[in-house]
Amino acid sequence: MRLSDLPTPCLVLDRGRLEHNLAVMSQAVRRHGVALRPHLKTAKSAEIGRMAVAGEAGGVTVSTLAEARYFAANGFKDILYAVGIVPAKLAEVARLMAGGAVVHIITDDPATARAIAAQGVALGVSFSVLVEIDCGEARGGIPAGSPALLDIARMLAAPGATLSGIMTHAGHSYACRDLAAVQAVAEAERVAAVTAAERLRAEGFACPIVSAGSTPTALHGTNWQGVTELRAGVYMFGDLFQAEIGSNALEDIALSVLSSVIGRRAEENRFLIDAGALALSKDRSTEATPHDRGFGLVRDLLGRPAYGEAKVLRANQEHGIVAAAGPLDFAGLPIGARVRVLPNHACLTAAAYDRYHVVDGGDEIVAVWERVNGW
Amino acid sequence: MRLSDLPTPCLVLDRGRLEHNLAVMSQAVRRHGVALRPHLKTAKSAEIGRMAVAGEAGGVTVSTLAEARYFAANGFKDILYAVGIVPAKLAEVARLMAGGAVVHIITDDPATARAIAAQGVALGVSFSVLVEIDCGEARGGIPAGSPALLDIARMLAAPGATLSGIMTHAGHSYACRDLAAVQAVAEAERVAAVTAAERLRAEGFACPIVSAGSTPTALHGTNWQGVTELRAGVYMFGDLFQAEIGSNALEDIALSVLSSVIGRRAEENRFLIDAGALALSKDRSTEATPHDRGFGLVRDLLGRPAYGEAKVLRANQEHGIVAAAGPLDFAGLPIGARVRVLPNHACLTAAAYDRYHVVDGGDEIVAVWERVNGW
Repeated sequence: MRLSDLPTPCLVLDRGRLEHNLAVMSQAVRRHGVALRPHLKTAKSAEIGRMAVAGEAGGVTVSTLAEARYFAANGFKDILYAVGIVPAKLAEVARLMAGGAVVHIITDDPATARAIAAQGVALGVSFSVLVEIDCGEARGGIPAGSPALLDIARMLAAPGATLSGIMTHAGHSYACRDLAAVQAVAEAERVAAVTAAERLRAEGFACPIVSAGSTPTALHGTNWQGVTELRAGVYMFGDLFQAEIGSNALEDIALSVLSSVIGRRAEENRFLIDAGALALSKDRSTEATPHDRGFGLVRDLLGRPAYGEAKVLRANQEHGIVAAAGPLDFAGLPIGARVRVLPNHACLTAAAYDRYHVVDGGDEIVAVWERVNGW
Repeated sequence: MRLSDLPTPCLVLDRGRLEHNLAVMSQAVRRHGVALRPHLKTAKSAEIGRMAVAGEAGGVTVSTLAEARYFAANGFKDILYAVGIVPAKLAEVARLMAGGAVVHIITDDPATARAIAAQGVALGVSFSVLVEIDCGEARGGIPAGSPALLDIARMLAAPGATLSGIMTHAGHSYACRDLAAVQAVAEAERVAAVTAAERLRAEGFACPIVSAGSTPTALHGTNWQGVTELRAGVYMFGDLFQAEIGSNALEDIALSVLSSVIGRRAEENRFLIDAGALALSKDRSTEATPHDRGFGLVRDLLGRPAYGEAKVLRANQEHGIVAAAGPLDFAGLPIGARVRVLPNHACLTAAAYDRYHVVDGGDEIVAVWERVNGW
């Protein structure tokens, strides 16, 4: 099978680039003597998960219970479900733990901590819980200095629960536009994590796990003292947005959408492809960066720069309108010609597909790897 | 099963509202003596497809070959695949036709028309082809007066192909902000369709199908003389964007995402839900309308107005940050409380899910209907 044999649109993953990206993150984290706990919300694939934990401590991160089920079924034994838990999801976590996986959960709420312990008793398990700390992202979590931190710890010092540590996520590193800014966010992330851990320890609570991370801060942080593990996910594939904020080079983006030309408008220097809003997602994150890539940057069948800086300017459900700055060579773009579109945001683009068609630099499909979607 | 028993996030469909919306469109089209060919790209469900064609001519529209396969397998016999065809997709269309369905295809390209006829001969079928006309959307299609129209018709006057008519789509009706503007676009759509059909007939070509439509123009067009059928899709569910452009009332939106509160920030008058960018889509179409709904408008468990005009202000992969204009009652929003989020764009939100949980005004799940996603 070759790229030209695949139905379009479909998802293409370059294995060599993936391996390169995994190695870069592994080395970045290893120099700090910190464990890497890859976040599998981007890849959602057991094959990629196994590559990402090879040589690492073995723990992974997930963003949905569907991922937790899938990775547990695929032999992953140490899973952090990094979205605030609600009591209604505890029964499923308990089932996964009964199957032999440790599924750490997170909370930032004392009443929920109490419910976790109570349900742990009722379900006959001891839930492993991390307290979520806000290091500046202003999404989930409590400040490292919050009185609620100790309230939660006390609620978890009960049968049915185990306080395993704290976690934080510097998602606001995505707002950074230079290395110094990323490094400053990384240090704030570390300080928040360590402050919270020290406060717990000062009150006599064990805090074995001090978990932080985002792709930019895990790559570029200069000091992770006191942190025990770093989480990151999108680094595996890279994308156009991460390229803008310095996480990866354009040429290291491992993920693309294979698409066919379905219309041509030479007089407008535009063409139409069968990758639209569903195939690419409507993520427009590069809009806020120096290089607005529309809904994606268009490359040739082999993923090479081509068509000037052609990008997907408009995305309807199944139509992408491609425009270029310079004049396009329409002789090389007949109806049915194939292009590859690099995504703004790999996590969202990949989510439309149930499998990866894996290539290794060329156009031969060397593997097909499944993905788990949904919740 | 009740809404409170479902895992979140998940997709909820209100059957009564769906039936209301189907009836409104059916009546709007019927008063013109024109057939309704529902576009199933929004619903992607055989159950809903059967409801949408009940009492109509029976033809449907699809946007992917996956939909064509699925609806053909579910007994739909007259399917228009309304995205420009590429030669590589013809073998699958031929297979579906061999199975007993008519799958009309569309093109706006003479070379592709020639390839269709040639492959029809090679595959032993006669492909039914509509020529795609651009009535002002500037996406696919040729102008009604284009010389290419007759070139394509001549290419299709060959064994292996049948020229079945023309189709056009006034997608630019989405840019309208008042009824008069929609009606003007509808008339331009009609004129383009009829002009193209008349040009074909004047040259001796039969043009039995004259197909037009979009939800706004099909609902509000005042004259469809010369058009034989109207296509529309999103009207079935309605959404926040369509509400802004006058296609449906807010209270007729049939689709919502059931979500759980996973975090609270009373001091910022915000809360966090487990419906983020994947559960809602990153569609921001209401941004360009008088009421920017963020990533969705938040309602209570029963879909009723609540929480002021609370909307999803930020959407990360699995987190939605909800903010309200007025002060929120956090006593009624504990962790685990459930809300329903109305979507900006129903087609894109629904695409993240493999099923609908059907309610009928209340919180009881009266049915579960599957969806077909992918390509």
